[in-house]
Amino acid sequence: MADHHLSRDPGHVHYDWDRDRDPVLDIDPGASVTFECFDAADGRLPDDATPEDVAALDVPGHAMTGPVRVAGAEPGDTLAVDVLDVSHEGVGWTWVYPGEAGRGFLPDEFPRPAVHTWDLDGEVGHFVEGIEVPLAPFPGNLGVAPAEPGPHSTTPPRRVGGNLDVKHLTAGATLYLPVEVAGALFSVGDLHAAQGDGEVCITAVEMPGEVTLRFRLSDRNVDGPELDTAGPFAPAGDGPVTATTGLGDDIDAATRDAVRAMVTRLVADRGLAPAEAYMLCSVAADLKVSEVVNDTVAVTAYLGV
Amino acid sequence: MADHHLSRDPGHVHYDWDRDRDPVLDIDPGASVTFECFDAADGRLPDDATPEDVAALDVPGHAMTGPVRVAGAEPGDTLAVDVLDVSHEGVGWTWVYPGEAGRGFLPDEFPRPAVHTWDLDGEVGHFVEGIEVPLAPFPGNLGVAPAEPGPHSTTPPRRVGGNLDVKHLTAGATLYLPVEVAGALFSVGDLHAAQGDGEVCITAVEMPGEVTLRFRLSDRNVDGPELDTAGPFAPAGDGPVTATTGLGDDIDAATRDAVRAMVTRLVADRGLAPAEAYMLCSVAADLKVSEVVNDTVAVTAYLGV
Repeated sequence: MADHHLSRDPGHVHYDWDRDRDPVLDIDPGASVTFECFDAADGRLPDDATPEDVAALDVPGHAMTGPVRVAGAEPGDTLAVDVLDVSHEGVGWTWVYPGEAGRGFLPDEFPRPAVHTWDLDGEVGHFVEGIEVPLAPFPGNLGVAPAEPGPHSTTPPRRVGGNLDVKHLTAGATLYLPVEVAGALFSVGDLHAAQGDGEVCITAVEMPGEVTLRFRLSDRNVDGPELDTAGPFAPAGDGPVTATTGLGDDIDAATRDAVRAMVTRLVADRGLAPAEAYMLCSVAADLKVSEVVNDTVAVTAYLGV
Repeated sequence: MADHHLSRDPGHVHYDWDRDRDPVLDIDPGASVTFECFDAADGRLPDDATPEDVAALDVPGHAMTGPVRVAGAEPGDTLAVDVLDVSHEGVGWTWVYPGEAGRGFLPDEFPRPAVHTWDLDGEVGHFVEGIEVPLAPFPGNLGVAPAEPGPHSTTPPRRVGGNLDVKHLTAGATLYLPVEVAGALFSVGDLHAAQGDGEVCITAVEMPGEVTLRFRLSDRNVDGPELDTAGPFAPAGDGPVTATTGLGDDIDAATRDAVRAMVTRLVADRGLAPAEAYMLCSVAADLKVSEVVNDTVAVTAYLGV
């Protein structure tokens, strides 16, 4: 039971970062807050969404619940955010849609909209061909207001947090953020029921839900996002792990090569359509940098589902 | 007990890749081979190596033991390499030395030679300030001969393998490589007792030793290195995991930012000199790509020691 509860009523939801936005809740350090959040599509996708629904989607930004003002937080302080609980239930969505902006990691290969709808009532999400993806929910977008006067897009992560998409920010983890404005002005949204490293197809398992966070002022001096995770991390999935090593002149090129090779592997071995393989990478593949110092760089994509 | 044993006698060691090199051993598919290997310094560093020894180091390439010709392997085939055992004992070395070539991931920050010597007789390696690094030995450089006439440097990884430095190629893993020349012509070297993702300072825990591999022809069609790992991977170390998230315009910049932040964190919290922190990242940090699709890219460095 958290100390405070913030609903996703229209007055508690915003679609950009702005230091001049009035807080909707004042708390003391040490307090916990349960935030109701919309999904990344702002609740605008139907449960049986089609590619046409995805192509027609028009949202002003991530729906962020907040901001919360933390008493005593001043520029130069560090805000510690303990992730206490993240719910998952109902329906979630994963979609591909590069649009005119060419979004996603492989937009040239995947120019057309696609969507998969997930039942999130169990411990795993069900994909196609009998593939199960373990659910490990976390907030994709969480942060404090930047010092620079806004508005600012909710899309890029910043030193003050935002759209970090660090999949290891599950319950038990703590995120440390540098405070840039008085009161910190914290907001959260974009909950993910599961995500692969990179979130390559542009979405994770997107879901509405609740996240409970506790806020502290920390004496850990940070210049950007840092975190403690709840424990050793395992790859998404508990099956044998298959991996593809990508090579390139830089880490970007090697990562693209690794993801392409994994898509090829999944199409060959698992009966997936290419867009399905791309989505499965986006929700369940781990991306690890193998080496960055041997003239040619190596990045490996791992999949355990 | 392997089917064959290859010593590291001079006639069995080479320092470049060349399709025209005569094999030193012929085997049938299904056979296992124990390879004696030199370390990456070709046995030229003393047990009590100093930074001056590192600066004076001059090796012609990685000392590779082989090549082994696999009967029946033809261009277009896939060679499966099962990692059965990797020994660790005696002394190992981690060094920093960018040299005139600017080697390493952060050469501007770490221009001077440095070295740490490890006792490898136990389950962990001992670093400074009481820090213990779990040993998880694997071969850093393993592959088959490229089709293009040589000689070719042993430094870059290629589609036929080579200096991959994939730290999850420990005992129990299987590496799949495309064969480009008749007989495959497999060689291995550059054993690592432990390594962080990226091998950022230019070296892992470099060691001489033995590696036992089994060779099979596989019907898995691969266009580059792929692997199965023995099981779920955990971060290096079994302590609480601390992580730094780096941001940048591309994955290269974000990775550098994450490593720099981890170096800063280790200097602040653990009493390490900057070069020691750089070396600890190189032997024990995991580097995961957090997201690559939000305009600004996020990569996170994780450390569990």
